[in-house]
Amino acid sequence: MPLMPHEDRMLPPCATIGIMGGGQLGRMMAMAAASLGYHVHIFTPEKDCPAAEVARYVTVAPYEDVEAVEAFARSVDVMTLEFENIPYKAAQAAQAVKPFYPSPEIVACAQHRGWEKQFATDAGVPTPNYQIADSYEGLLRAVEHVGTPCIIKTTTMGYDGKGQYRVLDASQCADAWQALGMREVIIEAFVPFVAEASVMVARGQDGTMHTFPVTRNEHEGGILRTSYVPCGLSVTTHTALEHAACAMAQRAELVGLLAFEFFILADGSICFNEMAPRPHNSTHWTMDACNVSQFEQLMRICAGLPLKKPTLRATCRMVNLIGDDMEQLTKWHHDPHAHVHVYGKAECREGRKMGHVNIVGDNL
Amino acid sequence: MPLMPHEDRMLPPCATIGIMGGGQLGRMMAMAAASLGYHVHIFTPEKDCPAAEVARYVTVAPYEDVEAVEAFARSVDVMTLEFENIPYKAAQAAQAVKPFYPSPEIVACAQHRGWEKQFATDAGVPTPNYQIADSYEGLLRAVEHVGTPCIIKTTTMGYDGKGQYRVLDASQCADAWQALGMREVIIEAFVPFVAEASVMVARGQDGTMHTFPVTRNEHEGGILRTSYVPCGLSVTTHTALEHAACAMAQRAELVGLLAFEFFILADGSICFNEMAPRPHNSTHWTMDACNVSQFEQLMRICAGLPLKKPTLRATCRMVNLIGDDMEQLTKWHHDPHAHVHVYGKAECREGRKMGHVNIVGDNL
Repeated sequence: MPLMPHEDRMLPPCATIGIMGGGQLGRMMAMAAASLGYHVHIFTPEKDCPAAEVARYVTVAPYEDVEAVEAFARSVDVMTLEFENIPYKAAQAAQAVKPFYPSPEIVACAQHRGWEKQFATDAGVPTPNYQIADSYEGLLRAVEHVGTPCIIKTTTMGYDGKGQYRVLDASQCADAWQALGMREVIIEAFVPFVAEASVMVARGQDGTMHTFPVTRNEHEGGILRTSYVPCGLSVTTHTALEHAACAMAQRAELVGLLAFEFFILADGSICFNEMAPRPHNSTHWTMDACNVSQFEQLMRICAGLPLKKPTLRATCRMVNLIGDDMEQLTKWHHDPHAHVHVYGKAECREGRKMGHVNIVGDNL
Repeated sequence: MPLMPHEDRMLPPCATIGIMGGGQLGRMMAMAAASLGYHVHIFTPEKDCPAAEVARYVTVAPYEDVEAVEAFARSVDVMTLEFENIPYKAAQAAQAVKPFYPSPEIVACAQHRGWEKQFATDAGVPTPNYQIADSYEGLLRAVEHVGTPCIIKTTTMGYDGKGQYRVLDASQCADAWQALGMREVIIEAFVPFVAEASVMVARGQDGTMHTFPVTRNEHEGGILRTSYVPCGLSVTTHTALEHAACAMAQRAELVGLLAFEFFILADGSICFNEMAPRPHNSTHWTMDACNVSQFEQLMRICAGLPLKKPTLRATCRMVNLIGDDMEQLTKWHHDPHAHVHVYGKAECREGRKMGHVNIVGDNL
């Protein structure tokens, strides 16, 4: 890929960036794009989504509607996505018309828990021991091979802890197979991790690559609750995380963002968990405690602007507002260190991400 | 006015904030409101304005259309303005339906160069020597009284150096009278200032008042070019500026933002120039170098959230992008300290504010 100078591909103001997906990530991307002077076109299957109200143009259609996708692609200058599970065919149809970042191949790889682990392995990055199975018999063999305890997950369409089943001994396999819908699954050895961390890699059209400072994450019930920067991990672990993430991003010839989640073991070694080809919840702290937010960085990449080298401005703790957490909004609004971000979702449901708070300063 | 606790009037997420005016200030206000989870309704006479593309609802109608204003007011929970010259009657019609901040009386006062100076005088704040005239004969008498050099300005509808005429001796009065449209004018003594500064005051529904750090400004041709924080003025001048601004905001029983521009004389004394009941160009640096932007602060006030106490996070220089300055955009995008904000205006005209850049750090 020839490395063109930035100027040759920098989008002028009032160019249009297309975003596939209409959730909160798209909402924050749209505002970052508007700040840079770009128009935004949201492609979403859902009317009244969080992103639509801050975007200039909106197409409401299913991702499977190829004609709608092509019309969307023709109306914009460049595209990216905020919803990682858009069908590969939709991304391909879009890319046939206008540049689409990250590439549909990276998107497809990140949609499959088996493929992304294979990709990690190919890049020399350790993963949990795992097996794929697409039948009940295959599942039994795989569990025997991987050993218990293990975690059985659907290979595709999993997020926020959905599509997962923990198996302590093989007798649970029948329940797991039923619960997960009798479809292709991945059987992963349980990793005795002492911490979880994520690394966000940004790579530009010209190949410039930067990581955001490593984030340490705490999940509850499979959903991210809290992220911390600085991560407080050892220099060795920190370096290993950055190297692993950059190796994979480089190997994928990434243009865009790629978020990596890792397990950290007691000896400080790292183990790849999953990746997402988009802004990531764990990196929301960049909105208030970094010189560049992950959303601005992605819009810069799409527009062909030079990337910014991310620099931590202050310590930060990011807390998700999930479902009933919204009842604490008044408390957060009174906290002088809290930067509250609410996604404008009309309906508050259990487990639904409604907003987040970045607590900036030294009071972690 | 009873001081209610915040909780009693805090707007819930998905409430709607109405903004009269559709320019770049409304655009940045709309994004700040969206970040807090509020919907925004823009009332604008101009279709395709900068604010509309990041707002959920838009009404396109002239400010003189009282029915449209009333319908707008009924559709929102609270209102404010981004364009200071909305007719007093429109603000009154809106306020008769829903809360409107700042009050129509403050808005009207700030629209008239004579009234705002009288208001400053009443609050004990020094102003240039001035006279009002609404006839050519009156103008001649006023210029004799005030002395030359002086500046003749229309009393209303002036902004960015428009509606002004510098008079070095009385023989220019006829030209000035013609040039300014033979309408009511204010004759202001020339102030031999050594610096210009602005102070932004924010005052909440509960009477809590905070100022943003004082900004030093440089104008060219009547248009703001550059603002600096910290302002580098003496502690005495700094204190005088804050006291004067707060005295006026308090006297006006302000709810909202009130921006004050002052001349600084060689002896460090201050002289009121003008005020604006809205976010102000000179305070755009708060978007990248303060713990709270002026736009978020105003949205917090409108929504009844507690104000944040503004704290400077870093030194900052704000540079406006006016007309052809947009040709320097590529340069700014390469500056690692520059935070570029572009307003999405399709047409670039001479003297038109197209965007601004906040240069954050120590390299001022």
